[in-house]
Amino acid sequence: MTQTDIATDETNRLIASNKVEGTTVYNREGEKLGSIYNFMVDKRSGKAEYAVLQFGGLLGIGSDYYPLPWDVLTYDTDQGGYVVGLDKAVLEKAPRYASGNEPTFDREYGRGVYGYYGINYPF
Amino acid sequence: MTQTDIATDETNRLIASNKVEGTTVYNREGEKLGSIYNFMVDKRSGKAEYAVLQFGGLLGIGSDYYPLPWDVLTYDTDQGGYVVGLDKAVLEKAPRYASGNEPTFDREYGRGVYGYYGINYPF
Repeated sequence: MTQTDIATDETNRLIASNKVEGTTVYNREGEKLGSIYNFMVDKRSGKAEYAVLQFGGLLGIGSDYYPLPWDVLTYDTDQGGYVVGLDKAVLEKAPRYASGNEPTFDREYGRGVYGYYGINYPF
Repeated sequence: MTQTDIATDETNRLIASNKVEGTTVYNREGEKLGSIYNFMVDKRSGKAEYAVLQFGGLLGIGSDYYPLPWDVLTYDTDQGGYVVGLDKAVLEKAPRYASGNEPTFDREYGRGVYGYYGINYPF
């Protein structure tokens, strides 16, 4: 890592919450999967546990919400969006909820969601 | 802690990012200090480092932005807002920035902001 890389990393280490919301999410093939609706943060620790992907529906009507483990998202400055290593087929079977039907986000739910993506739920 | 407390803690452990934004911030005397504009998250770890308080100005025009260490905020369900143990006088001298003049949020800046509030910058 060069000096420049370190400086870039330092200054771009943080992102504003309202910049995350609305950001487009692509898969590795460059297909648009949806966009980040919001993300769920632990009140006490401040740790983001899920980024919630809005996917499907028309103009947001009838779309579903897919909680993704925060760590599956990688920001791609070239595309100006997040890239996730997920096929649409995987996403179509993924844990989701409809608007107004938010889950309780307890630890059992967390283990299920993280488990679906092959990640150990660490909270 | 009773079983009920544990259940409540489990279900209310997380908060949505877009629910944090816009939430009113009070001091311990119940005075309104401002509202949360957004919060700054480490892209990689997902850890919220600052909650940014919008304060002063009229209808958001001319208001300044005060980055607060995430840990100084406590959510008060009775008031439906965050409570911080800060006097207006302390806030008036606090690190701030104007709209469009966001700092780089590097570690030196972090140590300054956290230090102002008497908290060791842990990142």
